[in-house]
Amino acid sequence: MSKIRLGIVGYGNVGRGVECAIKQNDDMELVAIFTRRNIETIKTSTAGVKVYNIEEAENHIQNIDVMMLCGGSATDLMVQTPHFAALYNCIDSFDTHAKIPEYFTIVDEIAKKSNKISIISTGWDPGLFSLMRVLGMACLPKGCDYTFWGKGVSQGHSDAIRRITGVKYAVQYTIPVDSAVEEVRKGNNPILTTRQKHIRECFVVAEPNADLNLIEHTIKIMPNYFSDYDTIVHFISEEEFKNQHTKMPHGGFVFRTGTTGNDNKNQQRMEFSLQLDSNPEFTAGVMVAYARAAHHLYLKGEAGAKTVFDVPIGMLVTDSMTELRAKML
Amino acid sequence: MSKIRLGIVGYGNVGRGVECAIKQNDDMELVAIFTRRNIETIKTSTAGVKVYNIEEAENHIQNIDVMMLCGGSATDLMVQTPHFAALYNCIDSFDTHAKIPEYFTIVDEIAKKSNKISIISTGWDPGLFSLMRVLGMACLPKGCDYTFWGKGVSQGHSDAIRRITGVKYAVQYTIPVDSAVEEVRKGNNPILTTRQKHIRECFVVAEPNADLNLIEHTIKIMPNYFSDYDTIVHFISEEEFKNQHTKMPHGGFVFRTGTTGNDNKNQQRMEFSLQLDSNPEFTAGVMVAYARAAHHLYLKGEAGAKTVFDVPIGMLVTDSMTELRAKML
Repeated sequence: MSKIRLGIVGYGNVGRGVECAIKQNDDMELVAIFTRRNIETIKTSTAGVKVYNIEEAENHIQNIDVMMLCGGSATDLMVQTPHFAALYNCIDSFDTHAKIPEYFTIVDEIAKKSNKISIISTGWDPGLFSLMRVLGMACLPKGCDYTFWGKGVSQGHSDAIRRITGVKYAVQYTIPVDSAVEEVRKGNNPILTTRQKHIRECFVVAEPNADLNLIEHTIKIMPNYFSDYDTIVHFISEEEFKNQHTKMPHGGFVFRTGTTGNDNKNQQRMEFSLQLDSNPEFTAGVMVAYARAAHHLYLKGEAGAKTVFDVPIGMLVTDSMTELRAKML
Repeated sequence: MSKIRLGIVGYGNVGRGVECAIKQNDDMELVAIFTRRNIETIKTSTAGVKVYNIEEAENHIQNIDVMMLCGGSATDLMVQTPHFAALYNCIDSFDTHAKIPEYFTIVDEIAKKSNKISIISTGWDPGLFSLMRVLGMACLPKGCDYTFWGKGVSQGHSDAIRRITGVKYAVQYTIPVDSAVEEVRKGNNPILTTRQKHIRECFVVAEPNADLNLIEHTIKIMPNYFSDYDTIVHFISEEEFKNQHTKMPHGGFVFRTGTTGNDNKNQQRMEFSLQLDSNPEFTAGVMVAYARAAHHLYLKGEAGAKTVFDVPIGMLVTDSMTELRAKML
């Protein structure tokens, strides 16, 4: 059987993760990378793959089955996905939760016209964590769900610190509060404030002669980002930063706790967790699995925007349903 | 909107669990219970629900949207499901893993002829655990998966002990070996023998004057059930048994650990776990969620046998996909 031919749009951390993930899937091949950067400067890790300017992406319709949109949600995807959904089956990891309904509507209309499939907001949250929240609600309707994130790097929070005067480098880790996780795990259904759920720990490299007290204060009172949290700020050397804080770990937990039975006294708990050395590479792995599903849905004649809620899990792997029933059920 | 009308075939632990689960779902109602027992002796917990002899089940086609088949896999379902799949949309929790392909083929042929849906082998293993194994394989193709069961009661093992001469009551708990779970959680991909994964702990009430040493020896050397495990046998009083060992807790873990990246050095871990006070009531909750999906698939004009691999997760709940995208993604 011929391989599923993928293209990558946007060659940052997620794009490079997709490139790696494709190598782990024998039924797929990477045929092209599209970037806004100077293509002369790009070094890929895949032998023979061509790199093009993003403007040329529309000239490859005959050679690409699914386009992996690896840009950021804040600016790239709102523009890129509508453009590419008119030409290709697409996968993205759009993660601005509040804008998902609007984004879906736009992409759905375009993909239905082009008779292509776009699976939006894949990855792990939104994505796998969303699946787990719905599965929990389905199986334990009389219950509560809780999502904790971390320990992991939040790019948005790290960026916010870096914009403060006197900050040279910074990284922010979101850390679930252990005691809160334990209360949930015990089925106590605690009511948790923002502060009770997560800690924010920041590692900052300051410019020479910067006012450290002022930086720390500026971080801690920053609305939305830090003021509602217990925030810890460490000032460290550039060397320590480069040795210990340049990876992108992440993870988290989704809990559903509920009760069943005639007297609703039996406690039942579902727990899903991720512990990831590399957030972008795992996100990429999920995206690639959904690319397989997008290709199958397209071959079945379906069209329009989809989410993880629409796609049968058995469609994410190479095995047929017959093989899955025999081996995995 | 009218409610989904369910019937229950087999009124044991799972059947009673389904009855409770239906009460937690506002879009459903229980309309009839079918049993092989004397219907005069049956006390239901649902006001107004009718109890019938199982022979009458074929006379209710106009009143029941989905039939919940709550019999055991060993003898009941192999006979009942083909019979009912010819008449009704059906849900079962058939769990004889080795016979699933054959069972699926039989049910699929019948359900396609009757233009009904049968979702087989729902519950948590097979069922949710199967979903997690496939999801793990999809997202981390270069990895290993591990399933641990327990701590929980194994009915099959408890029954095996009860068949030994001199045993009055018995219950067997399957317990994951903590150190093995921890090795897996660390991503060490251990190669584990049967003995290294689970312990079997048995609580036995002996008949007066029974030979306790002989009972213990007979348990420990029993092939398939106990001889490959470290087995612990406790003899306890009837009073202790009735106070402490009549519940049906269960649970377990599904792990997928894998590596990603150019040098395959980044460790990634997915973990799903259940901790259940009542195994049959949770199984029932999963079955009822899939009953909703079966009804929707039937209304869409689909027919045949399905498994958890075929059903989109968003179809398991009352919320529309639009609502799910807004609230849960």
